[in-house]
Amino acid sequence: MFFHRQELQHTVKPERPDAVYARKLQEVLGGQYGEITVAMQYGFQSWNAHMPGKYRDLLYGIGAEEMGHVEMLATMIAQLLEDAPLGVTEGAMQNDPTVAAIIGGTDPQQAIVSGAGARPVDSNGNPWNAGYVTASGNMLADFTANANAEMQGRVQVARLYHMTDDPGVRDLLSFLLARDTMHQNQWIAAAQELREEGVEDLPVPSTFPLGKEERAVSYQYINFSDGQAAAEGSWASGPTPDGKGEFEYVAEPPAGVPAPPPTNPDVRFHGTTGNPEAVEKALGVAQDALKKE
Amino acid sequence: MFFHRQELQHTVKPERPDAVYARKLQEVLGGQYGEITVAMQYGFQSWNAHMPGKYRDLLYGIGAEEMGHVEMLATMIAQLLEDAPLGVTEGAMQNDPTVAAIIGGTDPQQAIVSGAGARPVDSNGNPWNAGYVTASGNMLADFTANANAEMQGRVQVARLYHMTDDPGVRDLLSFLLARDTMHQNQWIAAAQELREEGVEDLPVPSTFPLGKEERAVSYQYINFSDGQAAAEGSWASGPTPDGKGEFEYVAEPPAGVPAPPPTNPDVRFHGTTGNPEAVEKALGVAQDALKKE
Amino acid sequence: MFFHRQELQHTVKPERPDAVYARKLQEVLGGQYGEITVAMQYGFQSWNAHMPGKYRDLLYGIGAEEMGHVEMLATMIAQLLEDAPLGVTEGAMQNDPTVAAIIGGTDPQQAIVSGAGARPVDSNGNPWNAGYVTASGNMLADFTANANAEMQGRVQVARLYHMTDDPGVRDLLSFLLARDTMHQNQWIAAAQELREEGVEDLPVPSTFPLGKEERAVSYQYINFSDGQAAAEGSWASGPTPDGKGEFEYVAEPPAGVPAPPPTNPDVRFHGTTGNPEAVEKALGVAQDALKKE
Amino acid sequence: MFFHRQELQHTVKPERPDAVYARKLQEVLGGQYGEITVAMQYGFQSWNAHMPGKYRDLLYGIGAEEMGHVEMLATMIAQLLEDAPLGVTEGAMQNDPTVAAIIGGTDPQQAIVSGAGARPVDSNGNPWNAGYVTASGNMLADFTANANAEMQGRVQVARLYHMTDDPGVRDLLSFLLARDTMHQNQWIAAAQELREEGVEDLPVPSTFPLGKEERAVSYQYINFSDGQAAAEGSWASGPTPDGKGEFEYVAEPPAGVPAPPPTNPDVRFHGTTGNPEAVEKALGVAQDALKKE
Amino acid sequence: MFFHRQELQHTVKPERPDAVYARKLQEVLGGQYGEITVAMQYGFQSWNAHMPGKYRDLLYGIGAEEMGHVEMLATMIAQLLEDAPLGVTEGAMQNDPTVAAIIGGTDPQQAIVSGAGARPVDSNGNPWNAGYVTASGNMLADFTANANAEMQGRVQVARLYHMTDDPGVRDLLSFLLARDTMHQNQWIAAAQELREEGVEDLPVPSTFPLGKEERAVSYQYINFSDGQAAAEGSWASGPTPDGKGEFEYVAEPPAGVPAPPPTNPDVRFHGTTGNPEAVEKALGVAQDALKKE
Amino acid sequence: MFFHRQELQHTVKPERPDAVYARKLQEVLGGQYGEITVAMQYGFQSWNAHMPGKYRDLLYGIGAEEMGHVEMLATMIAQLLEDAPLGVTEGAMQNDPTVAAIIGGTDPQQAIVSGAGARPVDSNGNPWNAGYVTASGNMLADFTANANAEMQGRVQVARLYHMTDDPGVRDLLSFLLARDTMHQNQWIAAAQELREEGVEDLPVPSTFPLGKEERAVSYQYINFSDGQAAAEGSWASGPTPDGKGEFEYVAEPPAGVPAPPPTNPDVRFHGTTGNPEAVEKALGVAQDALKKE
Repeated sequence: MFFHRQELQHTVKPERPDAVYARKLQEVLGGQYGEITVAMQYGFQSWNAHMPGKYRDLLYGIGAEEMGHVEMLATMIAQLLEDAPLGVTEGAMQNDPTVAAIIGGTDPQQAIVSGAGARPVDSNGNPWNAGYVTASGNMLADFTANANAEMQGRVQVARLYHMTDDPGVRDLLSFLLARDTMHQNQWIAAAQELREEGVEDLPVPSTFPLGKEERAVSYQYINFSDGQAAAEGSWASGPTPDGKGEFEYVAEPPAGVPAPPPTNPDVRFHGTTGNPEAVEKALGVAQDALKKE
Repeated sequence: MFFHRQELQHTVKPERPDAVYARKLQEVLGGQYGEITVAMQYGFQSWNAHMPGKYRDLLYGIGAEEMGHVEMLATMIAQLLEDAPLGVTEGAMQNDPTVAAIIGGTDPQQAIVSGAGARPVDSNGNPWNAGYVTASGNMLADFTANANAEMQGRVQVARLYHMTDDPGVRDLLSFLLARDTMHQNQWIAAAQELREEGVEDLPVPSTFPLGKEERAVSYQYINFSDGQAAAEGSWASGPTPDGKGEFEYVAEPPAGVPAPPPTNPDVRFHGTTGNPEAVEKALGVAQDALKKE
Repeated sequence: MFFHRQELQHTVKPERPDAVYARKLQEVLGGQYGEITVAMQYGFQSWNAHMPGKYRDLLYGIGAEEMGHVEMLATMIAQLLEDAPLGVTEGAMQNDPTVAAIIGGTDPQQAIVSGAGARPVDSNGNPWNAGYVTASGNMLADFTANANAEMQGRVQVARLYHMTDDPGVRDLLSFLLARDTMHQNQWIAAAQELREEGVEDLPVPSTFPLGKEERAVSYQYINFSDGQAAAEGSWASGPTPDGKGEFEYVAEPPAGVPAPPPTNPDVRFHGTTGNPEAVEKALGVAQDALKKE
Repeated sequence: MFFHRQELQHTVKPERPDAVYARKLQEVLGGQYGEITVAMQYGFQSWNAHMPGKYRDLLYGIGAEEMGHVEMLATMIAQLLEDAPLGVTEGAMQNDPTVAAIIGGTDPQQAIVSGAGARPVDSNGNPWNAGYVTASGNMLADFTANANAEMQGRVQVARLYHMTDDPGVRDLLSFLLARDTMHQNQWIAAAQELREEGVEDLPVPSTFPLGKEERAVSYQYINFSDGQAAAEGSWASGPTPDGKGEFEYVAEPPAGVPAPPPTNPDVRFHGTTGNPEAVEKALGVAQDALKKE
Repeated sequence: MFFHRQELQHTVKPERPDAVYARKLQEVLGGQYGEITVAMQYGFQSWNAHMPGKYRDLLYGIGAEEMGHVEMLATMIAQLLEDAPLGVTEGAMQNDPTVAAIIGGTDPQQAIVSGAGARPVDSNGNPWNAGYVTASGNMLADFTANANAEMQGRVQVARLYHMTDDPGVRDLLSFLLARDTMHQNQWIAAAQELREEGVEDLPVPSTFPLGKEERAVSYQYINFSDGQAAAEGSWASGPTPDGKGEFEYVAEPPAGVPAPPPTNPDVRFHGTTGNPEAVEKALGVAQDALKKE
Repeated sequence: MFFHRQELQHTVKPERPDAVYARKLQEVLGGQYGEITVAMQYGFQSWNAHMPGKYRDLLYGIGAEEMGHVEMLATMIAQLLEDAPLGVTEGAMQNDPTVAAIIGGTDPQQAIVSGAGARPVDSNGNPWNAGYVTASGNMLADFTANANAEMQGRVQVARLYHMTDDPGVRDLLSFLLARDTMHQNQWIAAAQELREEGVEDLPVPSTFPLGKEERAVSYQYINFSDGQAAAEGSWASGPTPDGKGEFEYVAEPPAGVPAPPPTNPDVRFHGTTGNPEAVEKALGVAQDALKKE
């Protein structure tokens, strides 16, 4: 169950309207790595979790916080739009180049569709979609996805920080940056703890019998480009992070195997099969089949 | 530049047709974590890379391999469909329950649209889309995304391994599982190397001045659910993975701040503002504005 | 701020596994009118609301309940999948027609992607997307959208009720049906209250000066089909619901006006403009323009 | 059957080009509540209607009108683009800030993709998609959806009216506003008529036996937020619009029920199950199962 | 303007219900090359046409026919679903394997969402979207797109013809096949006429000055794979269809040029730039910049 | 198998940064007819080809070239963004109208998401999706799709050529224009060759028995609009391009047939069926059915 309290986790108060920035801020609300994504992702991971206890509590505990971040960003965006030029002004229809320049950078749907309100979309107006969410049931994989989401999110918030000098906006961003710092650290710690407790290990999923994979190529770097600098990396020699092998550098891919011959499905799929006789046959088979029915 | 050779990296030869499985296999070809995703992701990361050398070579070297995996899976799918019942059969229109049962599990577009061929979609027929791709320009974030992609991919291939007993299909999957093992290890090693070389560090992005985030909450686990088990984790006390703080457990969120009052944008957005007088005023303002123009 | 409690609003306990039904139930979780839609819709309407008080409290009060419904459905789906055949079984690879028939009706991504877990998608596996959400800032419009959402949702749950005889599933559905009954009534009451209080009225938006619309056609039913039965309806004669006019039935559309001539944009858009001389001219203009630059 | 006549229902003639506005106007052509949506929605509702007569005729009669509105808006947009700066100009490449400001607000695809023509997209360039359409077969639900669509549409047209002072554009909008007024009134009247005739009633669907829903909570306002103002509304006490109950206000949600224990699906889904012994067992089961096959 | 008549262009009457086939038929209603696509495509091409006369009339004349085909297919689908098992049956909940097998092949949304009605989606339930539409303003390009659409459509209808033996369904398909035959021929004839009249020519757009493209590679087949069979084709030697050159076969791509060095954007994008000194510098620049503001 | 070489097919070097243009160029990288589309389309056509030899080699040979074009455009875009104003500047937050005007025309995600890098999206930021790809297995249809793709692509590149005067950008575009010229010619030649060799013919698919389509309407132009100019075209009289008939002009559609009566599905779908008695009956049936279970 979820409960709402009519407070915010942190002050949300811009110093002045800024519709151009309101559009940009949509990215971390409704973008691929915005707050809706993490709120939904932690939610589905918790509901699909296969054990009670600390890991599931971690998902529950953070998921609801992220829903509150959705609310904070929506609140900020609505305020940034409140008194901003959005294409609706007194008398003149904004033929002032300065105003036109500003309006050019705004999201027209924030004006036309939501009437100076926030929307569940990214900074280009793409609606948020659940193709962004990861919840596989395997916690080491999923916590790595979460660490990535918090990293991408913090990169985006950092970029946005440099795109405004409004102290009120920056104050909110400084809070979000700190929470992303926490969440990055937390998912990395949790992923590490899964490994230390023997609950899950590399390679993920560690419950699949390794003997069933083709071990001869499990630790080979096979280079499909013509640069050789990758040979210098720790991924090209030495022990592997899963503790089960040694990296090997293969400078050029070994010869492949011949591709199988093209398929030749039922002629009634009317694919092109290559010569007039085949076509005649196809026509005949189709004709016969249709007659028989 | 990319070059194609008419060979495959590994044998692709199922023992028998299986249209139901051909549908399932679409997941790791055209799904969120399918081969198209990683091929495109490593490509865009390489083209957006900001330095030459081993890290970019790593992206180049693997990206082209993944395009070859796309080809292998497409080839396998076409063969699984080659002689399989797809709704088109001689005489009888497949009223046999056994055949009907099989057809019920197939992807109708593999028959109607591609004529017994593979498609750039997932196992539910959703077209692949670039919202799955991550390429931020920050390599520690992106390599973490890559590690996750290889983990999710290997989880899915492992599940698919248990869904067939065709030795030819399993032979291909055992190869893909091994390559996913390699790529998981490789991205984890590369992420670690970025940190060891001081090129990038936690929290990502490490080039953002920490002093500008609200440090008071940078390491607090704030629990927005009512379970307390998360307090037991390594993310609730002790040093943080970024080496810059100590985790702190906060069992209940501190009181929030009052939300700002609702916004009151231009009346000509025709939002609902709450009482008949406001409405009269809105109507008047709109009327006046329209008159003046 | 949102808080989570590790309880459910109602018992969620199916009597037996049913993977086919688990797929169907996704519709009211992640479909166009599923619980994610209403949770998000009420959220964005509350954050974009332009006045404090009872209407906004109504949105806040219900929005968080709907997030809890998301959780209940996800929990139910995970249980329906728990011991169900999903393509992974001992020994035999499910060549049993009965099992095949069942598997044919399941969502392969519930097995391959989420490992027997719920997903933020509809019953055809389409990811939920924010194009389903309505939040215009105009409350009479939005509450009508909400009434519709609760009606569509209850229609879908009623259909789903007839598709199972599992007492545990039906018990949950009977609860959701009742809540949808409440929410339908509530939004209709709230929409009516907006009108009675003079806060908003028909036609929406009532703050736009009616004199600026072409009143001659504001109450005409203009029939663009050849049936005449619509003339019998209350929308074809008599007073209009907005209280501002009388319906009029127009059996056939009046003659239209000539369409304007086709546009003739800059030749360098290389649109087809119709005759060789125009083409020569276009080529010349493009050539000249390119020379001048 | 549909027939086309080379006339328009109303004059479509802007006074001057305006590419920025041409982009905005896309919203009511190809957006969530644009003319394509209502044309398709009324079409599918008519083709799925379960009875002949006045209600179906109403759908037929309006649906074709809306297709004509699609045509009018497309025609207007093409004219607004006809002589507008779209990034292609003589000699100078538009380094003039005024021109740059204008171009910044245009849709680049209107230039690059359609060559100064209209497109089936919204004002942010999102392609129209059928996820916007509602056609359930239940007419009271669907007519409520239609009323909402006409309200949202009129709100958007009203906003757009304030964003231009071109008399030709406003002339078209004043016509569309009037038709939206009609259609709002009409769907509300039709919904009312369905109830009065006993064809359908609240709660929708009224053909589902009420006794099968959990009546104890059918009229309770359960408040999941901490504001109490919603208690003042007509949805918190008094008779319900469906005429079958009395509203009741519940200031705080009653205690919930314990969530069921986490699911524990087949180990071969390789979900994380929590302790090293479980992992060993999972590995063993998978190994054994693979051996047996 | 569009007008509707309550008749169909051809009889639409299946002999018996078939919900599995009803799902398949969605492909040619709401798929990439379904009737909605061509109706919309011809519509937008006509509204964006730049000249009056025969070509635009051709678009007008066919576009409205295609809307009638949408209606015919929707009508057929609703009838195929009318008495079909869709998961809702008396008493038993369809545990009969035969029925289960059938239901496994149906579209659950045709039951749950539209109540045994047609939907604007394809055979996998993907909503139709306007990304399928082509309307560039260049008629030779667009008519080629149209020819392709009619070819793909006829291939799909032909495949569907073999997937049923219902005489009523086949009767409708035989009509649609014939109309696709006509439309293929028509667009090919129209494309040819554009060339013969000198209105447009190859290469499209023929109004772009050829001297501005790099003519040295305008007719070279450059082979990026290792097969040499393509040298045998008419595209590898001899005159080119545009009448302006001779094909040339290049067995292996010539050496490329070095890629430019990686980009090095503003450090405040926090991309990874490669060595600890650069990182220190980035941190310093960001810090300084933030101080200065 | 695919191999990468760290070279480009042509020089990629803009003379100066231009973030507005970088956004526009995304269209031909990640748009409907961008390079990702053709790379994927030729790939899937080759993997689904049903015969070895020259046609498949043609697909292989060009597909890999197109992947290299993806790389060239991504490289160009990254350079155009390298030193361009993207909303991040020293000190002042870009309140300069000139800079604001420029920024208004940029893609905010190129700054926030990819840190001044290219993205797999179009010029409006829509992610590329596989709904753009055509690969039916029928080569005459597919080569026509390919010819169209190259035409649309060349139209877009030509338009983009006029939107810049940067010699470096134009140099790349002149190369792409020439390759599009080649590819248009090649697919037209290949389509012609399929017909000449008798491998495939019009109407597509030529392997479907013509006698099974309703030949009476196979060559009729049926005019559903009120213009008569289309009668002048070569598609209205004379021999048809498939060589199997004569075009016929039908100035007005013949009378249609009555539509079938509306469907009346199971009452438990709760569709609206029209009168109170029917409703009572529906309620009773549902009630009875529920009792019996």
